[in-house]
Amino acid sequence: MLPSSIKKLLTSETAGSDNRVSVSGWVKSIRCQKSVSFAMISDGSTSNSLQAGFQLSLHLNTSCVVSSLTNGACVRLEGKLVDSPGVGQDKELRVEELQVLGACPPETYPIQKKELSLEYLRNNVHFRARTERIAAMLRLRDKLMQGIHSYFKSQEFVYIHTPILTANDTEGAGETFRIAPTKETYSDALSEFFSLPAHLTVSSQLHLEAFQTAMSRVYTLNPTFRAERSHTNRHLAEFWMLEAEWGLSAPANDGGDLQELCDVVEDLVRHTIAHAMADATCTSDIQLLNGPATSRVDALRSVSDALARWPRMTYTEAVGVLQARHAQRSFAIPPQLGASLASEHERYLAEEVIQGPVFITEYPQVVKAWYMRSIDPSREMPLVACFDLLVPHMGELAGGSVREDRYNVLKANMERYGLVSGQRNSTEETGASPGGPYDWYLSLRKHGSAPHGGFGIGFERFVGWVGGIEHVKECIPVPRTAGRIDL
Amino acid sequence: MLPSSIKKLLTSETAGSDNRVSVSGWVKSIRCQKSVSFAMISDGSTSNSLQAGFQLSLHLNTSCVVSSLTNGACVRLEGKLVDSPGVGQDKELRVEELQVLGACPPETYPIQKKELSLEYLRNNVHFRARTERIAAMLRLRDKLMQGIHSYFKSQEFVYIHTPILTANDTEGAGETFRIAPTKETYSDALSEFFSLPAHLTVSSQLHLEAFQTAMSRVYTLNPTFRAERSHTNRHLAEFWMLEAEWGLSAPANDGGDLQELCDVVEDLVRHTIAHAMADATCTSDIQLLNGPATSRVDALRSVSDALARWPRMTYTEAVGVLQARHAQRSFAIPPQLGASLASEHERYLAEEVIQGPVFITEYPQVVKAWYMRSIDPSREMPLVACFDLLVPHMGELAGGSVREDRYNVLKANMERYGLVSGQRNSTEETGASPGGPYDWYLSLRKHGSAPHGGFGIGFERFVGWVGGIEHVKECIPVPRTAGRIDL
Repeated sequence: MLPSSIKKLLTSETAGSDNRVSVSGWVKSIRCQKSVSFAMISDGSTSNSLQAGFQLSLHLNTSCVVSSLTNGACVRLEGKLVDSPGVGQDKELRVEELQVLGACPPETYPIQKKELSLEYLRNNVHFRARTERIAAMLRLRDKLMQGIHSYFKSQEFVYIHTPILTANDTEGAGETFRIAPTKETYSDALSEFFSLPAHLTVSSQLHLEAFQTAMSRVYTLNPTFRAERSHTNRHLAEFWMLEAEWGLSAPANDGGDLQELCDVVEDLVRHTIAHAMADATCTSDIQLLNGPATSRVDALRSVSDALARWPRMTYTEAVGVLQARHAQRSFAIPPQLGASLASEHERYLAEEVIQGPVFITEYPQVVKAWYMRSIDPSREMPLVACFDLLVPHMGELAGGSVREDRYNVLKANMERYGLVSGQRNSTEETGASPGGPYDWYLSLRKHGSAPHGGFGIGFERFVGWVGGIEHVKECIPVPRTAGRIDL
Repeated sequence: MLPSSIKKLLTSETAGSDNRVSVSGWVKSIRCQKSVSFAMISDGSTSNSLQAGFQLSLHLNTSCVVSSLTNGACVRLEGKLVDSPGVGQDKELRVEELQVLGACPPETYPIQKKELSLEYLRNNVHFRARTERIAAMLRLRDKLMQGIHSYFKSQEFVYIHTPILTANDTEGAGETFRIAPTKETYSDALSEFFSLPAHLTVSSQLHLEAFQTAMSRVYTLNPTFRAERSHTNRHLAEFWMLEAEWGLSAPANDGGDLQELCDVVEDLVRHTIAHAMADATCTSDIQLLNGPATSRVDALRSVSDALARWPRMTYTEAVGVLQARHAQRSFAIPPQLGASLASEHERYLAEEVIQGPVFITEYPQVVKAWYMRSIDPSREMPLVACFDLLVPHMGELAGGSVREDRYNVLKANMERYGLVSGQRNSTEETGASPGGPYDWYLSLRKHGSAPHGGFGIGFERFVGWVGGIEHVKECIPVPRTAGRIDL
């Protein structure tokens, strides 16, 4: 059993005169008075620092204390945890022994107490968790991950570590990263380590579907990669994606059972936020990230505790609303039936029309992916049984669909996208070892397939939305974007 | 709220005459009698199938039931869950409605009821979770992951998603995978997407150390990659690694505080096993994986519940024991002071000398990594403050060390390994943006570093050890090894 963290000490019931404790942490600030000095000590367990008081008359002399307690130094303190007579904290540590574990020369330490720009901190990414904001984000990230696991466990999903390296390369062609052929290093070996070109995964969905067809309910939180060169505040080259697939409870009608999909996503998000809001460290962190004057915590509580289901509207209704407001709002891109919703449209719907999370359902097939279940393909504008979840200040948080589980319809879709050839010979028909890179996927539909659906949530976007953090680069421990790679 | 799984139905208290339920799953077998047929249905939630009885006199006719209930078909059943009059199960489902969600033609379905070889199943990896053994492994994997999170949460560790893509390339040089330069696809762009060559991580340790120096206690369970061509039953090209780093509670003496390191690893492994053993589904799965005649579950309980700490011996003692037994045991590789322990030595120590888990500590510096804390370098054979945890039938399960936190010693080590140049100019000294790929790591030691240590556990090995699974290819959903890449 490791010793209690500062978080535990500050919330313990046991403060008293004989309560001797030992604590390690980093000096955040120091304040010297005539006979006593105070240092604020942080160990990363909470945004609240421990106030440590040094009685300079004892074995601690002024010059020693002041010279060693520089910003960023790591110290171990022993002493008594007592009720604090000062304002601003309930407890403080009366230091009896001080040991400097690691000094921190102010002249070279990058984390100064002044305001530091985001870009400066990205350039010092190995130290930026020493800042309050990044530390708060890391704790929030961990907490949200725990909440996600807790939800999926309650619904009996099995976590599947789907592969990172894959032979698939088509989704978002040209935007995948490829493993270099190994001939440079192994002149005598095959030029491809895996015999086929290997790519970094862009989505675990297809793999999850294979496991869904045996385990019923599966999910993953996996690293995902896109060789995107766009520099927006919502894109990273390496990010974490939460994805789930499960068998739908009610038989899909022609529209697919989109309501169950939306219910699960909504329940997951509400559960995860409620899980985070129940923890005082987490609400302090969110307060810290948003500033003392904001009501982000209240806003989140109202999202997770709302009595009614979040609103749901179809794509067609949404475009109608946007078009009706266009004259007044004047979007940069005019909303148009049959086209994707632009980012400005998504935010407008969530921020101004609904003023909260909203599901937009049943998009046109032409703007969505080939594996989504089609609805009434005889319409002029064929639709698919899918949804996007839009939230204020972010736009798209989650997207998902009922999957096309009808063999012939899926096969025709895949042929249209060039994923399988029209002339099948043997491999996929027999269900044996796959020939083409997607034959195995089609083969799933021939052998005990069932109506199922799933969704994906970009985890950094979720962290950013809950934490009120503007840029996804500040929602991940070490960001990866085009043009640079640190650490 | 999604409907109850078969696991929940089988363990529910509510079986009775009016207990109507709906359940979906895959047919595992069917047995026909004159007026009633029985099918065993599995949904992946437990190794126990639900027995479904079809009264053929009702609206279900024989030919319909028998022809549709083929092995692997996906069905939805409605009916009453009742106490079973038969032997072998407590409850069964009296089916009133049958819906075939997905047929499964026996002539092409790869998962036949006969014994299937491991290699055959690897060739059908998209369907192998339909077998009882792989499904049991997937549930065990999930359960162990939950146990790991539960332990680290109890000890206040923060989960950190360390990066998968990294500029580091030296550890195990030549065995890393490299991202292909993008010039093939982007003729007008820089040849390197990230401006520097990017590699897939071989270990999260160094990155975790950066976060340790702000959050005190950190861990990760991350995909890890080695371009290894060796075909053993313990190696994969893509695997998951559990790694942790934390500040040591007691100041490191010259030997480093190895005991605390071993304590945490032992507590983690015991806690995780106890967590799994407390779940009846999990113990059934382990029983299934090991066969009914084995006592694997009892063996695991005795490992997790042992009153005394697991034995610990130094490398020097271990070599002494091995040498004393060599005459009688005749190892292929004679044990020798100053050399690595061979796999046969490791297994012999755990299986025959100790007959259980054992920590071997303080190896010679020459056989271990450059970042480990050295002990008394003036000895003839300098040692490092490290350990390996050896377990029966597996050998090395975990390895870790106190990290070298003394700036000058670490710098000299890194120079010796060519990781930093001897002539430093500016970047690392100032703690600013790193120049060489490891400057940032050295810089950590100058700014509030503290004695700390950590360890790594190959997650597939852990799954294999607990589950009694021989090959790591059967411990991961989709294995990746040299020469092939499926799905």
